[in-house]
Formats: sequence, structure tokens, C-alpha cells
Amino acid sequence: MTQRQRLGYLGPVGTYSEEAAQRYAQWQQGEPIDLVPFSTIAGCLEALAIAQLDLALVPSENSVEGSVNSTLDSLWRLDKLHIQYAFDLPILHAFVAQTPRLEEIRTVYSHPQALGQCQRWLQHMLPHAQQCPVASTADGLQYVAQSATVGAIASVRAAQLHQLPIVATNIQDLADNCTRFWVVSRQQGNGWPTTSSTHTSIAFSLKANQPGALLKVLQLFSDRQINLSRIESRPSKRALGDYLFFVDLEVNGQPAIVAECLEALTAVTDVLKIFGSYQFLPLGAS
Amino acid sequence: MTQRQRLGYLGPVGTYSEEAAQRYAQWQQGEPIDLVPFSTIAGCLEALAIAQLDLALVPSENSVEGSVNSTLDSLWRLDKLHIQYAFDLPILHAFVAQTPRLEEIRTVYSHPQALGQCQRWLQHMLPHAQQCPVASTADGLQYVAQSATVGAIASVRAAQLHQLPIVATNIQDLADNCTRFWVVSRQQGNGWPTTSSTHTSIAFSLKANQPGALLKVLQLFSDRQINLSRIESRPSKRALGDYLFFVDLEVNGQPAIVAECLEALTAVTDVLKIFGSYQFLPLGAS
Repeated sequence: MTQRQRLGYLGPVGTYSEEAAQRYAQWQQGEPIDLVPFSTIAGCLEALAIAQLDLALVPSENSVEGSVNSTLDSLWRLDKLHIQYAFDLPILHAFVAQTPRLEEIRTVYSHPQALGQCQRWLQHMLPHAQQCPVASTADGLQYVAQSATVGAIASVRAAQLHQLPIVATNIQDLADNCTRFWVVSRQQGNGWPTTSSTHTSIAFSLKANQPGALLKVLQLFSDRQINLSRIESRPSKRALGDYLFFVDLEVNGQPAIVAECLEALTAVTDVLKIFGSYQFLPLGAS
Repeated sequence: MTQRQRLGYLGPVGTYSEEAAQRYAQWQQGEPIDLVPFSTIAGCLEALAIAQLDLALVPSENSVEGSVNSTLDSLWRLDKLHIQYAFDLPILHAFVAQTPRLEEIRTVYSHPQALGQCQRWLQHMLPHAQQCPVASTADGLQYVAQSATVGAIASVRAAQLHQLPIVATNIQDLADNCTRFWVVSRQQGNGWPTTSSTHTSIAFSLKANQPGALLKVLQLFSDRQINLSRIESRPSKRALGDYLFFVDLEVNGQPAIVAECLEALTAVTDVLKIFGSYQFLPLGAS
């Protein structure tokens, strides 16, 4: 008997993460997968690190709101995880409320990223409503059920699951708003790219806060014509002005060149962590 | 009769931003200043851009949670504002609740940045409590007044203003947790450094998403021995993988060199915005 795989995601049911998890499970047709909701991204990745899960599906970056800090910080801290796959999910937000009369709406609940992705619509259509961040887009819908002066931003699917009226669709500021998700497992091997890898994600700190320290690192990529599809700085949590850098490299059919570059990087970085090499799955199109 | 200056900040009364605004107003002893609370950073900077305010005081970066995205995004978008001063405020968080018995606490309310800055304490002391983000640290205190099973993370001063019991102090993960604030005014001049400037803040987009584009920019700084005290990437909001870069330069007594570098930058960037040159005020020590 095959043991069922356990895949953790940021719940509850009705979040975009759950939609992404469903798509990944459908793609893995052969193997049965149990989807396990978590209330935080950090909690989900920690459960994976101590083998309570086989896989975790976490958001890494949104086209409007940028990197998902808790994913990057957890991968740096936990040190035992590797990215296996990536895919982009289109994020189409709907406005959900009991009444279609927007002038009666006093408060709008949603996840901070979703509120950020709909700022122009909110400022234009609901300039006087208070914006209240909650832990997930699905959580915001609970408030809609309780009061006629409350609205929420969530997916069409989540509104349908909660049997709540959809007042407007596609309210996100950017037409092609999408979120990149990573499928993460426990570490296997060194995370260096193979012939099937399209990207390698790494993070590093620099040896000293000196002019040109980051330049030396970028020079290594440039010398080898390696393109960066993301570069992101985050505070090292030691002091203001001290940073970690998170970089996604394009492998571009040359895994040996990227592997050689990763070796060269150890000489010009302080701590270097390989988050894994992976390919993009075509799961985004609906 | 002198007209009173109007300084906007992220309210309500009792936030760290209000504490920073109070310190700035005390430092500006001579001139009377009215402090005007706003419910969002974007709203505060927009009011300044259309001359409803004379100054805005906004958080720019925290030593644990990193850049304040809405400040960076608003400065890029509004295009008419200049940073006048900067200073660092120590951020010492307290846990506020009606009961000292932590095992009775079910929910903890605070601003997402404050929750992020106390993750280790929360995971150790309140592992089963739900963490609820709210719009400001002061807002979270309202829930404490309403229920004995609720806690909030806020400043000692805010707890005292609301006459609520302080259960624990200094619960932030990093002992020297601090937030950098910027005092912003409408644009005057070109924002280039003068002999009194210690820092210049800029933002830019690159001409194409090609290997080495960022490298060329960093090479300009390195050639001139200009140190970067911050480098931050944010999505351009056009597509995944397309970035803006926010950089703080140390002027280091050489304003002419930095000014010449800013001119050279126009050739290697797509859009370049000068957020202003300024000095640090010694307002941080209590």
C-alpha cells in the first residue's frame, strides 16, 4: 500500500494557497496527496523541517506586493529545506459583501497583500472605508457573513465556498497580477542544478559592510552571463544596514556553469545557503 | 503671527510614529507644530504632496522587519517629495493584557511589523494564541479593553495612555530593535547633497532585464568609494521579475562626488528619482 503524501499550505480552505495546492495535487495525478492547512507560513515550513510533512507549498513573490518575507526568512533560518518546483498562479480578486451598494460599506477585511494589490480600486470605489488586515483572504469572509456594512477581498472560489455574494470581480490593480509558489521538501543532495533545472535560488550574507562587497558577488554572475530573475535584500536582524540577499538565478541550460559559480561564491560571501534548483511547472493557466 | 506648521504621521495617538513625531516637534523647539494623525502612510504622504501638510514623518526601515513598503512605494509614485531629516527610534515592545496569566490568552493583536518583531517571544510564551494583524499597535489595545482572553503588543507609553496593564516589557526579539524615520517635505531644489548632508536616498529602474544591468550601477558607486547603507529591490508592479531599486548612499563629507555620481547614473538607469539628501538627527536616545 502506498503511503499518502502530506502537503502543507497556508490555510484555511478558500485561500489562494489552497487553490495552488489543489493544482499541484491534480498535476501529481498518480500519487494521492493529503492537503494540510497551517495558520502561518513559518509553522508550515517548520512542520516540514521536523518531518511532520512531506512537502510544503508556500508563496514566494507577488507581482505587486513583492517578496513574501516569512517564506524567505523561514528558508534562511530552517536550513534543511530545498525548493523542488515553482509555478505562477494568476491572482484575480473579487469584492464580496452582502449589499451591492458600496456607499454602505464601512470596513473592508482581507490579507495585507490582497489589500495592497487592490489599493487603486479601494481608493476609487471605497475611499472612506477602513481597511482591516486579517491573517488570510478566507478569514476576511467571516466578517462579511456577520454584518451588512462589511466587505472582503477574496477569490471568487472562496466567496462561493462561503456562499457569499460577489459584488465586483477582477478588482486587482494589475491585470496580470500573479503569485509565484514554491513546492518545498526536506534537503536531498546539495541543491545544485541538473539538466532539468531552470532556476537556482540562493541566499547569502556579505563578509563586511564595505563598498563593493555586493559588487564582487554580482560580478561573478555577470562574468558567466548568468541572469538574475530576482534580487531581494532583507535585514540580517543583527543591525540596521546589515543585509541578507536572496537571489534567483536562471540556469539557462548551463547547470555546470551555475554550479561552478556557486563554488566561486563561497569565497566572496560570509554565509551562503542554496535553497535548491528546480523547474517551473505549467500550472498557472486556468 | 507665525503660521503653525502641520506635521502628518501614522496615527492614532500612542503609535511609535506618534512618539517619533513628538520627539521631532520637541527638537524643533522654536516653531510651533501641529501633529496630524493619518490612518495610512500613503494617505499621509499624499496629503503632503497636495500641500495639506507642511511635513510628513514616516517610518522607512526597521532593523528586524526591513523596509516599510508603503513608504518606498509612495515616494516613488508621488514624485514631488524630498526627505529632509532622518533619525532612528528604539522600538521597545510591551505585552499588554488584563491578566498576567498567559495561558488564558487566546488572541494577540498588533501591527504586522510588531508581531514580526516579537515572533520568538510569541512562539515561546504564547505558542497556541492566534496572532491577528491590525492597522496600528495602538488599534490592538482596543481589543484588550474588551476581553480578558486578548493581548496586544504595543509601547509602554501606549498602554499607559489607554490605562491598560503591562504584563511584560522588552519582548522584541532583537535587543537593539529600532526603526528609522524620515521627515519629508515637498520638493525644493534637486535633492542633491550639500556639505551638511550625511545621506542621499535614490530609487531607479533599469533599462532592460539583462545580465549585468544592476552591476553597471553598482560599479559607479564602487568606482567612487561611495558606500551603500541600504539596497532594496521592490517589484515595479509591471511584471514578475521587473524591479525598482531603492538605495541609500553615504555622502561621507564628499557631496560633489555623490552629485557627479547622480549625474552619471542617468546614463545607466531607466527612471532615476532623487528622494533627497539629509542629515541624521540625534533624537533616538531616550
